[in-house]
Amino acid sequence: MLYSPVDLSQKQALVFEQWTPKIVAQMNDTHFKVVKIQGAFVWHSHPETDEAFLVLDGAMRIAFRDGHVELRAGQMFVVPRGVEHKPYAEHECALLLVEPAGTVNTGDAAAGPTAPSDAWI
Amino acid sequence: MLYSPVDLSQKQALVFEQWTPKIVAQMNDTHFKVVKIQGAFVWHSHPETDEAFLVLDGAMRIAFRDGHVELRAGQMFVVPRGVEHKPYAEHECALLLVEPAGTVNTGDAAAGPTAPSDAWI
Repeated sequence: MLYSPVDLSQKQALVFEQWTPKIVAQMNDTHFKVVKIQGAFVWHSHPETDEAFLVLDGAMRIAFRDGHVELRAGQMFVVPRGVEHKPYAEHECALLLVEPAGTVNTGDAAAGPTAPSDAWI
Repeated sequence: MLYSPVDLSQKQALVFEQWTPKIVAQMNDTHFKVVKIQGAFVWHSHPETDEAFLVLDGAMRIAFRDGHVELRAGQMFVVPRGVEHKPYAEHECALLLVEPAGTVNTGDAAAGPTAPSDAWI
C-alpha cells in the first residue's frame, strides 16, 4: 500500500481565509495547523500551553510586551504559555502552528477573530 | 528585546552525524528534533507514541509492513504509535521530528544505533 504524505504546499493552496488555522496532521494530542496571516492580530496569551510557530512562506513578526521576534520561511519560535503576544505580517505569510488539540487562536483575548479550533483540510 | 528565532537551516548545518536527532525546540513536553539520515534504519515501533516526520531537505521513504510512504522537502507524515516502520534515504536527507520528549530513535528495537534522546543543538 502506498501511503500519502501531507504536502504542506498543497495544504496552503487550500487555505483561502486568513487567520483561520486548519489542521493538517495530528501527533498524539498535538495538532499541526496551516494558517495564512496578514496584518496585525489581537494581543492574547494561552495560559495553558506553549505555541510553536514555523514559517512556511513569507515573513512575520511576533510582538511581545518586552520585545519581538522576526521569523521568515524555515524559522520557528515557541511562545511560552502565558506570554502575551501579537502576531503581525506585512504581506501574507503562511505558517505551520504546532499546539495541543483544542487550542483557540485568540487564546484569552476578550474579543477578536476567534476561529474554530477543530477544522481539518 | 529582540528574540532569536530557531533557524532550521542553521541547525541542520550543526548536525554532522547521521541518525542522531538533536533537539532544537520544545513546545510543552514535545520536542522538535533535527536529524540527518542516509541509508536504511532498523525496523522499530514506538508503542507509547505517534511520531511526526517533516522533511526539510532531500527525500526519504518510510517502509511499513504493509506498504510505504515517500516524503520530500515540505511533506510530512505521522507514524501512528505501535506501527512498525523503517526509515530509508538513498541520499542524505534532513528531517524535523516532532515527538514527545524522551522518545528514543530506535523505539522498541532489540538492537540498533540508539542515540541519546536529550541532546540539544
